Amino acid sequence: MNRKFVFYLFGRIGQTVGALLLLPMFVALIYGESIPFVSFLGTSLGAIGLGAIITRLCKTSNNVIYAKEGFAIVALAWLGTSAFGALPFWISGEIPSYIDAFFETVSGFTTTGASILTNVEALSKSMLFWRSFTHWIGGMGVLVFVMAIASNITDRSIHIMRAEMPGHVVGKLVPRAKDTAKILYLIYIVMTVAEIILLIAVGMPVFDSILHGFGTAGTGGFGIKADSIGGYSSYCQIVIAVFMLLFGVNFNIYYLLIIGKLRTLFKSTELWAYLGIAAASVAVIANNIYSIYENAADSLRHSLFQVSSIMTTTGFSTADFDLWPGLSKGILIVLMCIGACSGSTAGGIKISRIVILFKLIAREIKRLIHPRSVSSVKFEDKPLDDQTLNSVATYIAIYLFCLVTVFLIVCREPFGFETNFSAVIATFNNIGPGFGRVGATGSFAAYSDLSKLVFSGAMLLGRLEIFPLIIALSPSTWKKTR
Amino acid sequence: MNRKFVFYLFGRIGQTVGALLLLPMFVALIYGESIPFVSFLGTSLGAIGLGAIITRLCKTSNNVIYAKEGFAIVALAWLGTSAFGALPFWISGEIPSYIDAFFETVSGFTTTGASILTNVEALSKSMLFWRSFTHWIGGMGVLVFVMAIASNITDRSIHIMRAEMPGHVVGKLVPRAKDTAKILYLIYIVMTVAEIILLIAVGMPVFDSILHGFGTAGTGGFGIKADSIGGYSSYCQIVIAVFMLLFGVNFNIYYLLIIGKLRTLFKSTELWAYLGIAAASVAVIANNIYSIYENAADSLRHSLFQVSSIMTTTGFSTADFDLWPGLSKGILIVLMCIGACSGSTAGGIKISRIVILFKLIAREIKRLIHPRSVSSVKFEDKPLDDQTLNSVATYIAIYLFCLVTVFLIVCREPFGFETNFSAVIATFNNIGPGFGRVGATGSFAAYSDLSKLVFSGAMLLGRLEIFPLIIALSPSTWKKTR
Repeated sequence: MNRKFVFYLFGRIGQTVGALLLLPMFVALIYGESIPFVSFLGTSLGAIGLGAIITRLCKTSNNVIYAKEGFAIVALAWLGTSAFGALPFWISGEIPSYIDAFFETVSGFTTTGASILTNVEALSKSMLFWRSFTHWIGGMGVLVFVMAIASNITDRSIHIMRAEMPGHVVGKLVPRAKDTAKILYLIYIVMTVAEIILLIAVGMPVFDSILHGFGTAGTGGFGIKADSIGGYSSYCQIVIAVFMLLFGVNFNIYYLLIIGKLRTLFKSTELWAYLGIAAASVAVIANNIYSIYENAADSLRHSLFQVSSIMTTTGFSTADFDLWPGLSKGILIVLMCIGACSGSTAGGIKISRIVILFKLIAREIKRLIHPRSVSSVKFEDKPLDDQTLNSVATYIAIYLFCLVTVFLIVCREPFGFETNFSAVIATFNNIGPGFGRVGATGSFAAYSDLSKLVFSGAMLLGRLEIFPLIIALSPSTWKKTR
Repeated sequence: MNRKFVFYLFGRIGQTVGALLLLPMFVALIYGESIPFVSFLGTSLGAIGLGAIITRLCKTSNNVIYAKEGFAIVALAWLGTSAFGALPFWISGEIPSYIDAFFETVSGFTTTGASILTNVEALSKSMLFWRSFTHWIGGMGVLVFVMAIASNITDRSIHIMRAEMPGHVVGKLVPRAKDTAKILYLIYIVMTVAEIILLIAVGMPVFDSILHGFGTAGTGGFGIKADSIGGYSSYCQIVIAVFMLLFGVNFNIYYLLIIGKLRTLFKSTELWAYLGIAAASVAVIANNIYSIYENAADSLRHSLFQVSSIMTTTGFSTADFDLWPGLSKGILIVLMCIGACSGSTAGGIKISRIVILFKLIAREIKRLIHPRSVSSVKFEDKPLDDQTLNSVATYIAIYLFCLVTVFLIVCREPFGFETNFSAVIATFNNIGPGFGRVGATGSFAAYSDLSKLVFSGAMLLGRLEIFPLIIALSPSTWKKTR
């Protein structure tokens, strides 16, 4: 384990977070919010200073890292960033409990969008900005950002990208990982700006547009109003619904689009499966809720919005879907677990894994009927080796075990099965709202501190796809290399 | 596909079921129940006659079968047996709707124990007998029974056993599958008789003892009283609790015990994992429900009873565990999915698969840290090949997909998430009672006919471990061999 370089990178991340905290500080300046201004300034200086000390102490010429180091850096970075990012909320007193502030920040960075706030509109503008900005940073990844902007830190940064980016396999778009990171961030920025401009164009205030742009891009879901997106015009709702769906697409697809490889694009199984599942869900739910809205356009709009919001694990809402009929709620809870495409900013199991699992099942059936047959499983036209297949199947297993473990810890809370179970699903898959008390109009405020910490862990596990955290927490990872 | 021989065996099964129906007929005779007597006699004669016609028509000298035929026979046998077994309930008018009678019979044969009856005590003695007897027949398997008693039907009957017996791998205890079937049935009969004698010894009426013996042995759970086992003495409850646990053990363990291979027995990972999970759950729940019963002995007894009942997927109850705190209910719902040992009469995912999944996860973590390491997964001291590992992981995937599919069909029922979700878990894992409306004191009576059929399908899928039914329903299975 190259511990020195791991800590060196950790220091660099601290500096980066410190720099990013200057943005909400300027927002505080613009709106004349003095206490938030001081909180952001203090935290920023602290992070930059601490980062500088660590990088100075751990400076090393050995920048060779392997998978192990990648996981360790990612786990450290996310824990540290969340712990630091929570400080402004706490120092300013806008979220009086540090555990609550930590929960809220983890929820932000992991793009979950679950909140402990019972009255979000009471927050200052700059705090709202920081809260939504964490979504935007977390969406593409803190480390991918550091890699994209930093001068050549390491040639092996693909190990970091693999550990931080969601999905069963992370490929490089171009030979150097650093350039891949740059391209991904460029696509991310362009799409975010496009959405913000469109939102302003259809009449949403500029401040609101920027914050909702952050929330959509990161598939986060922190709203700034008590009724989330419900109070904005239908046009605003449709723009956000469409952009949520777009941010749930594998970013490689956009790269293929840019370089003109349209044929590969149209043959993407994951893309079509994603759009197919979304379309089918929208149709069934729209039909199912027609009796509530008694209007085809409204039913369709609410259904489209909620399906894209839940499937991309964003968590915005235009309606209190907790009051919808059982079938609609059932579909939504299944979509929560499926999630969107790998290589997007969304959470959940990911469509690619679901597709591969279906192919594994088909192969197993074939093998049971013809025990001596040998057949390979293909995905996106490439045959998958046994190791990848095993990893995908094992991921489902560990996904379930984590889900069950978290559920067993929080099920002692006296809120009933639906609330507790959906709260686990909603945090672990980085959705945000669940059903019952943690539904679209509820919050996580009533949970105990222990449960809030467990939920924070669940959000981190979900965002980092479990393994990095587990590996980073195992002592054997930190052994010195002989 | 050797269709002729498949139908020939189906005919033999018809005759066997016809013969088995004579038993409840005698019970009707003893208790002087005339309408049930006629219903059983008629169904019995019908089954024997139809079976004779089919065996006559499909007589063939080609008794070679492969895996495909094994799955087809098993699926046909279970569907046919349930359809026929439901007739007495319906003909006698004691269950007026045929779909209800079918649900009840499937629930019996699959050893689920879910009921549509709102007043079980209104049933005649002979119907109660038949209802519990289906548990006993289904526990070890209809076909294993036919194989054990019939003269040499086929040398390849291992394919049938594999398809019918639960667990990830079915081995022969002795070289010939037929002899294995005989040994298993002998153990099964001896243990059932032992339990019945013990129950009579601690003061349970003879009739009740026999029926509860059937329900325990098959890990079924049909009670004959409105409060299940709650009204019997503590001694009765403890005897049943212990025997439920015993019937959840892999029967190979008993065989090892008989032939004196104690060392292999004590090294069984599955056995220790099973007992460990059970002991831990009993301790936590007993502590959790202490506030309700305010008495350590009562808490421990109820906890032990419910844990063995749920974990072995039996479904008897001594208390309305729907009223227990969230933690206890949470543990029970997780135990519902885990189930007991493979090679037992219990349902669920099975401990062996859970153990293997944990080992797969450990290997994946090792591989992520040291990408070039190669390590094999061992179970019960034998290394498992990639195919077996893949099968286990794929089983979890198809298990989840079936669970989700069934849930999406029944979630439109207006009973709320907890009831609908636990009803799916309870039928699919062959438990019986769930929570809420389908809890220990409730029933499935309120569900629509469509949902009842879907639940029946779920019970069959669970009992036969999914693949046989899917394979038997695929048209390509039934193609004639060229």
